[in-house]
Amino acid sequence: MVRAEIKQIARDIRTMRIRGAGRIARAAARALKLVAKTSRAKTPAEFTRELGRVSELLLATRPTAVSLPNTIRYVMLGVKRAREVDVQTLRRAVISRADEFIRGSKGAVEQIGEIGARRISDGDIVLTHCNSDCALAIIKAAFKQGKHIQTFVTESRPMRQGLISVRELRKVGIPTTLIVDSAVRHFIRDIDKIIVGADSIAANGAVVNKIGTSQIALIAHEARVLFFVAAESYKFHPETLVGRLVST
Amino acid sequence: MVRAEIKQIARDIRTMRIRGAGRIARAAARALKLVAKTSRAKTPAEFTRELGRVSELLLATRPTAVSLPNTIRYVMLGVKRAREVDVQTLRRAVISRADEFIRGSKGAVEQIGEIGARRISDGDIVLTHCNSDCALAIIKAAFKQGKHIQTFVTESRPMRQGLISVRELRKVGIPTTLIVDSAVRHFIRDIDKIIVGADSIAANGAVVNKIGTSQIALIAHEARVLFFVAAESYKFHPETLVGRLVST
Amino acid sequence: MVRAEIKQIARDIRTMRIRGAGRIARAAARALKLVAKTSRAKTPAEFTRELGRVSELLLATRPTAVSLPNTIRYVMLGVKRAREVDVQTLRRAVISRADEFIRGSKGAVEQIGEIGARRISDGDIVLTHCNSDCALAIIKAAFKQGKHIQTFVTESRPMRQGLISVRELRKVGIPTTLIVDSAVRHFIRDIDKIIVGADSIAANGAVVNKIGTSQIALIAHEARVLFFVAAESYKFHPETLVGRLVST
Amino acid sequence: MVRAEIKQIARDIRTMRIRGAGRIARAAARALKLVAKTSRAKTPAEFTRELGRVSELLLATRPTAVSLPNTIRYVMLGVKRAREVDVQTLRRAVISRADEFIRGSKGAVEQIGEIGARRISDGDIVLTHCNSDCALAIIKAAFKQGKHIQTFVTESRPMRQGLISVRELRKVGIPTTLIVDSAVRHFIRDIDKIIVGADSIAANGAVVNKIGTSQIALIAHEARVLFFVAAESYKFHPETLVGRLVST
Amino acid sequence: MVRAEIKQIARDIRTMRIRGAGRIARAAARALKLVAKTSRAKTPAEFTRELGRVSELLLATRPTAVSLPNTIRYVMLGVKRAREVDVQTLRRAVISRADEFIRGSKGAVEQIGEIGARRISDGDIVLTHCNSDCALAIIKAAFKQGKHIQTFVTESRPMRQGLISVRELRKVGIPTTLIVDSAVRHFIRDIDKIIVGADSIAANGAVVNKIGTSQIALIAHEARVLFFVAAESYKFHPETLVGRLVST
Amino acid sequence: MVRAEIKQIARDIRTMRIRGAGRIARAAARALKLVAKTSRAKTPAEFTRELGRVSELLLATRPTAVSLPNTIRYVMLGVKRAREVDVQTLRRAVISRADEFIRGSKGAVEQIGEIGARRISDGDIVLTHCNSDCALAIIKAAFKQGKHIQTFVTESRPMRQGLISVRELRKVGIPTTLIVDSAVRHFIRDIDKIIVGADSIAANGAVVNKIGTSQIALIAHEARVLFFVAAESYKFHPETLVGRLVST
Repeated sequence: MVRAEIKQIARDIRTMRIRGAGRIARAAARALKLVAKTSRAKTPAEFTRELGRVSELLLATRPTAVSLPNTIRYVMLGVKRAREVDVQTLRRAVISRADEFIRGSKGAVEQIGEIGARRISDGDIVLTHCNSDCALAIIKAAFKQGKHIQTFVTESRPMRQGLISVRELRKVGIPTTLIVDSAVRHFIRDIDKIIVGADSIAANGAVVNKIGTSQIALIAHEARVLFFVAAESYKFHPETLVGRLVST
Repeated sequence: MVRAEIKQIARDIRTMRIRGAGRIARAAARALKLVAKTSRAKTPAEFTRELGRVSELLLATRPTAVSLPNTIRYVMLGVKRAREVDVQTLRRAVISRADEFIRGSKGAVEQIGEIGARRISDGDIVLTHCNSDCALAIIKAAFKQGKHIQTFVTESRPMRQGLISVRELRKVGIPTTLIVDSAVRHFIRDIDKIIVGADSIAANGAVVNKIGTSQIALIAHEARVLFFVAAESYKFHPETLVGRLVST
Repeated sequence: MVRAEIKQIARDIRTMRIRGAGRIARAAARALKLVAKTSRAKTPAEFTRELGRVSELLLATRPTAVSLPNTIRYVMLGVKRAREVDVQTLRRAVISRADEFIRGSKGAVEQIGEIGARRISDGDIVLTHCNSDCALAIIKAAFKQGKHIQTFVTESRPMRQGLISVRELRKVGIPTTLIVDSAVRHFIRDIDKIIVGADSIAANGAVVNKIGTSQIALIAHEARVLFFVAAESYKFHPETLVGRLVST
Repeated sequence: MVRAEIKQIARDIRTMRIRGAGRIARAAARALKLVAKTSRAKTPAEFTRELGRVSELLLATRPTAVSLPNTIRYVMLGVKRAREVDVQTLRRAVISRADEFIRGSKGAVEQIGEIGARRISDGDIVLTHCNSDCALAIIKAAFKQGKHIQTFVTESRPMRQGLISVRELRKVGIPTTLIVDSAVRHFIRDIDKIIVGADSIAANGAVVNKIGTSQIALIAHEARVLFFVAAESYKFHPETLVGRLVST
Repeated sequence: MVRAEIKQIARDIRTMRIRGAGRIARAAARALKLVAKTSRAKTPAEFTRELGRVSELLLATRPTAVSLPNTIRYVMLGVKRAREVDVQTLRRAVISRADEFIRGSKGAVEQIGEIGARRISDGDIVLTHCNSDCALAIIKAAFKQGKHIQTFVTESRPMRQGLISVRELRKVGIPTTLIVDSAVRHFIRDIDKIIVGADSIAANGAVVNKIGTSQIALIAHEARVLFFVAAESYKFHPETLVGRLVST
Repeated sequence: MVRAEIKQIARDIRTMRIRGAGRIARAAARALKLVAKTSRAKTPAEFTRELGRVSELLLATRPTAVSLPNTIRYVMLGVKRAREVDVQTLRRAVISRADEFIRGSKGAVEQIGEIGARRISDGDIVLTHCNSDCALAIIKAAFKQGKHIQTFVTESRPMRQGLISVRELRKVGIPTTLIVDSAVRHFIRDIDKIIVGADSIAANGAVVNKIGTSQIALIAHEARVLFFVAAESYKFHPETLVGRLVST
């Protein structure tokens, strides 16, 4: 039964079996596609209401994950543009937008890696914090281009995601040093560049990310070390345009 | 046998059974006093040589602990001032200087607590890093004066001495919050004052202390939060006066 | 006689009986609308010349008030777009643009209040300088939403408009403290946010406002207190785009 | 009756008929001299107790005026050094120390004027805040040396002591401009030097002075304008050496 | 023979007989126009390949001069938009785009001079570094408007282009002082504005210019002296949009 | 004739045949010693007057060289302390103080080299400006201790003394790079330490040195590169204690 499948997706997001902004976003797109494929709605209005209910179900799973409303908005734009002609057209619009989103999302991290890697020079020592897909994509892409780089990774207490990053970087052969979070300023003169990910980005450019990020940014600023934030576009928080504060 | 007792002191310092700048310093003073009391030297020169050998033994135990040469210099000044008259006078001089040093050392932390507490106001929220006798003495003294204070303590990775500080502060009833090292900038607007200890203080005022201290100082400076370093005078590194770098 | 009515509007702006960027702008729109309604022009060219003469009359009343040329430009765009077809069409275009402008202007302050209020959190202490409609709209909107806020208002010498702001804020029940202009840095650690208005905004983002504003901004910057400038879009100074300096 | 005269001095200090750090200090010295001259004490101990009682009377008049305890400490040092030999010797010691203090105090402002004036160059534009004897002494001394200087004086709300300074400076012929307190940053690029007085100076160099001083210092610091604090030595707060906070 | 003429242009750019971003750009446009005029291509594809070969020839002359690819991109856009219809249409498109570019380029410096001059006030003392057409255009335009200005010019070691600037400025009668590069901070308080040119401008606003520019910018920033960079739009480096570093 | 010899010394200082703070100082000491040795004065007063005349002669040769009055003050202190007993005693006092000064001066640069070298670590890249005996002494001493160091030397326009420094450093085998003065910020991330000399040092710690020094200090400060000023004690300007500005 389809209902069950959609509920399962919602449950998996809520219980963090599905985690990471990209994976959550793609799961939501998949859920909407399922609705479009299996809906028994007779009228465009009915169909739209059904999508609305599922959207609300998905949004409730992780109220602070900004990639969720961004995905839904992206997919639903297909419906809006189709202007409620007939159910069949709407169905196709949702499926096509959802597929488009999923493809785009998968490609985004890879593209960020490629563009970001141009900023890494041969011989650079790069520091990263926590465990960000985008940040690691850049470092790995630069390394695959044959640049001799080394990395420093902060432990990232309390959850210690730095250890995951260390493992990922060492697996591809990048020389990596784990440091405690309080050692960043001690090593900063050795660091050429810092790359971190983002949980959410506000209209004024403010970045919301894992505890410790702002502290590293301050240290980098003082030492004039380049500091890059790498994030997919669905991390952007559109309601900050009209003044909303980001809830974390 | 006395020899054995002195060697035991040296061993205890080396193996860190005796630890903390104050305890090490007092143990060294005790060792020199033992020499003075039990020496069989016949001439002032012989007596001085004996003290010199024990001094070298003590200095070798912890080459980077600046309180060790400072203690020995303090005690040996008694010998210098006595100008090698006779063994008995030298003996008394060493014993009296050693006792003086031990008394002074014990009183120092308490006095620092008392003077420092004047800087803490009722209602202050104080952050401390790692586990410093002097810093805790100030916080506790202020609390005993009836000031309603709260403390934040950094975990102080990798050894996590912050947990010891939390325990000590809670034991006397001070409301205390443990935070990860990377959360200092996140909480800095709530903090009124920061108090830390020091391993060593150079002639130009530079402070050598536990990893993470300089990072907290930078954050405090940006946020204009008062930052105090509390240390006994034997933390001063006299050779920095003529340019030596502090080895850590 | 209509002529007389238009001259009266110009006189009232010049003598400051009509004052405040918004009120001046709406009066100018009203004057142009009057011309459109009552003009006896026979040809589009004649009609446009008549509007041009009144525009010049209005611009001369307050050469430094940027909202005046902005209003005229807004209304006259209706004429330009209509491409001089016939007098009747131009008439309607001017009337409709003028009405549109007046409606938009009235709504702007309210909307700024609503959007800005999202930036005010429960418990915030807000400082404002001088007497700005937009700044007060934000504070009042936040208060009406049930947020418990307090305000500090600078006296704003030499004209002491701060006293007007204090009266307005107290009237709606917001606890308000009047401080002398030189006390801002003394209280800055108690302040959570600062909101001011603007006389004019340049293309590079520079803000021209009442004496003392830049001094408060410096103090806020040092203390890392959020500083908001709230202004309607007709405060923008378009000629700064091509290098002109704002004359004040 | 002498008692009455001393009580009158105390009353005049309390009621601010005697005001200004220098005048208060000299009045206190005069009171102690009166005690010394007229005391009927038979023993050194009795004499010292009498001085102690008067000292306490004086200290109670203005608990935050640091020049008061400094004066008393200065005069009483004569008693301490005399080592309680006999009443007559003590009497002479107190009288001589009090006279010495009064002379020194009168000369201090003049000397500060002379030394400070060396820092003022021909053509300088000098800003001063509030109404400080020392600051004005420097400006006037420089002007008397024939240097062509101009001054800006802040109004210094709420008491507007800036107006007194303007009057004093204009009386000797120095071109002087009064500005509102919030205009300092507006004019800062025209200013070459800033000179202010001090109410009290702490062991760490911190200056306590009239509201607005710290704000001007921040503006001067940003604009790299030289900022001088001119104060007599009895403004120094000795208990800050052992941690006391200055109460204001 | 036309081939020869094109080769000569390429050679002149390579050997720096043609130098300066503007002159290089216009020469490249001229070369492409020559191709268009004289090509014997039969098909659009053939014609496009021929233009491509010449473009590569030109690009190879000065691989780091960003105005070169920008010119070629500008001209070739005419070909792209024409969508390969027939050789004659393409021919006309290239000629027209090349002419348009040459005209625009010639007018750009003049227009920059005019807009920039609005930022110069009567009595300003302006510093410039090296020898930039745009910077000098602004200074001269302001001077021609009757503003009384003076200039300081840095020597600009090692090539000493500052001497060329001094000559140009003195020729039109502007009082000009040559200073050594290390004297900028010494004179900075006398300087009102600084104007420099640019070799290249990146997507993030970063400016690449003659050695010493960043040092002057730092000094200007500290002293809060306005610092303007004047450059034609073909100095923009488009590949920096996707992360490329500017090679210099 | 002795007179002639003294006049020659004065002439050599004036014409810069004798140059460099140390050499000037020692020549002045030598001149005073000559007076003491050859004076035919009969009374202490006569002898002192003679020394005074020669001192004035010497001071007039280079009014801004602070080492000159410092030398004379040092030597004349011997006369003051001797309290005018008899000519013979004064004679001996002057000779002995002059010799002491000359010895001390010669040893000073060497000692500064030795102490300063402790601040240089193996592998350091050191930048120096202009041509300072003290700065070079430190670099050479560190190099002789076997530390592998490299140096950058600024050209130091307009006199180009940097070339002398380059020659001196290369002579002892230190790898040295000459850079133009405006390239300091470009290379600053490669530099570990900066060492310069001083012409004069004021009571507030202000350093007067060759044009360009303050600019390098600003760059070093921003980049957090250690900046050392090395100078003999007779560079201290004692009259700055009472407010005098250093004339340069």
